[in-house]
Amino acid sequence: MNRKLVTVISELNDCYRAQIAAAAEKHGFQALFFEDDVSAIPALTDAEIVFGQHTSLARNSPRARWLCTPFAGVNQFLGEDVFASPDAVLSNSSGAYGVTMAEHVVMITLEMLRRQMEYSAIVNRREWVRNLPVRAIKNSRITLLGTGDIGRECAIRLRAFGPASLTGVNRGGKNPGPCFDRVLPQGQLDSILPETEILIISLPGTGETCHMLDARRLALLPDDALVVNVGRGMVIDQPALERELRAGRLYAALDVFEQEPLPADDPLWDCPHLLITPHVAGNMTLPYTMARIVELFLEDFENYCAGRPLARQVSLERGY
Amino acid sequence: MNRKLVTVISELNDCYRAQIAAAAEKHGFQALFFEDDVSAIPALTDAEIVFGQHTSLARNSPRARWLCTPFAGVNQFLGEDVFASPDAVLSNSSGAYGVTMAEHVVMITLEMLRRQMEYSAIVNRREWVRNLPVRAIKNSRITLLGTGDIGRECAIRLRAFGPASLTGVNRGGKNPGPCFDRVLPQGQLDSILPETEILIISLPGTGETCHMLDARRLALLPDDALVVNVGRGMVIDQPALERELRAGRLYAALDVFEQEPLPADDPLWDCPHLLITPHVAGNMTLPYTMARIVELFLEDFENYCAGRPLARQVSLERGY
Repeated sequence: MNRKLVTVISELNDCYRAQIAAAAEKHGFQALFFEDDVSAIPALTDAEIVFGQHTSLARNSPRARWLCTPFAGVNQFLGEDVFASPDAVLSNSSGAYGVTMAEHVVMITLEMLRRQMEYSAIVNRREWVRNLPVRAIKNSRITLLGTGDIGRECAIRLRAFGPASLTGVNRGGKNPGPCFDRVLPQGQLDSILPETEILIISLPGTGETCHMLDARRLALLPDDALVVNVGRGMVIDQPALERELRAGRLYAALDVFEQEPLPADDPLWDCPHLLITPHVAGNMTLPYTMARIVELFLEDFENYCAGRPLARQVSLERGY
Repeated sequence: MNRKLVTVISELNDCYRAQIAAAAEKHGFQALFFEDDVSAIPALTDAEIVFGQHTSLARNSPRARWLCTPFAGVNQFLGEDVFASPDAVLSNSSGAYGVTMAEHVVMITLEMLRRQMEYSAIVNRREWVRNLPVRAIKNSRITLLGTGDIGRECAIRLRAFGPASLTGVNRGGKNPGPCFDRVLPQGQLDSILPETEILIISLPGTGETCHMLDARRLALLPDDALVVNVGRGMVIDQPALERELRAGRLYAALDVFEQEPLPADDPLWDCPHLLITPHVAGNMTLPYTMARIVELFLEDFENYCAGRPLARQVSLERGY
């Protein structure tokens, strides 16, 4: 038993470690668990499979054949010199985050529509003001830019609120299921923006998506439209959005930013009409999410051991 | 044309006034609109129908046959000397608020589960903390105490989040539709509380519902359960709940209170594990709500003119 599976995920509890160890043993692997990258380095020298999130794992695993990240985003793995091993394939945990991200999206969307930041300030002053005009998901025209796991889970929940429309937008315009009223190809994005009251972005960060929402496209949105971004910050031209927010023309709820952590002197911190969350829509602190990450990894571990293709293999060219 | 319909709702825009005036004229009524109770008093002397929210309207309308309140709650009309006219019936606008209240309930439920007040404080300090353990509606056992319009609209939306169960509780245990997994009679409330992770209360304030959630019943809830109240404050023994919150045993999101406005020196203002909103879940500031209020009134106006029973007549004994 000298095939090695190295896991470097500090959030894994003993129950998940036991599950992974049992699956490993069944297939002749030794499972090794580390809390941090540095302590894992000696074990990485001859690791065949690595389950962890940092690029240093790829850089220090010369004999790895498969690296699985517990995250959905893989931007950091796209550089040319990331993988020390020429044979390594990369998979992600796309499919584990849709539930927690969709709950976050619905929450921050409602907080903006119902002016919850203003009510929160009112309550902090112990005042009893009740008459702020609010808006609703009900009867709103919603566009979801990105129709993967996150976009779909959002659409399923938003549907129950009775929106006027739920339009998905993705690369090819293929409809991934019944949760959208229709799905348009990205080429038609400009045509749908003028009739979008709520825009929900869950795109990965790639060369193609970089600044997809630039000043010109933001200007296509109608007055008072709400922009929600839980994908990658680079998808939005952040200074262009900030201008629209400061002008009082658009509203936004952002969980992701062009630079993270958002620098302490970034002008966004005190930008009006903006709800900031510190990239928490899709972290691993929801127990359900960690359960899914392990479940999806074990599915692909079975695929790997059976010589089948990985279900969640990432295309390093495409970037997701 | 000396039959009079007097409307005293300051939030009514010209479009709604025109709709009401047209319907009135069709049936031989003169529609009169006032911004406040005092200026309406002379017109109330011979008003047959009054559409407004304050008890002073009932007290000053000796010849009224029908008073319709644009609110859902009718507590203030239940006193013995409220109606100057012996022939007056009361109707409410139950059915107009479910949508806005359900959006509020989902929002404050998610804010508590995802610790949004703590994240908000973190963001206000321009910090980048991301690791607070959160919870989800997904897989939670939810009990809805009250299965009227509000409870049903909540259940429809919560269903889309994939809860473990959605149990309704009402007086008779009759299931009002497919949105609940099951509906229990109030007599079985004690048996469902120990397995309730999220309790959503939308009960009216009546003698029967007063302190239904007393210290004993609150103690039946499991540790870390979340109590959401958007019905009437009197349903919960507020000091008993406060003790549970300060002990760190329960969480709560309250839109309604035993005394409103919540007094400036009330200890609840700085109670931990509590999200306060100033009775805004079901106000009229959502345009959809006002549209429904007018729509429901006009439906019952047709009923009234045709001699049919009012669809939303309130039982003054029952209190809703």
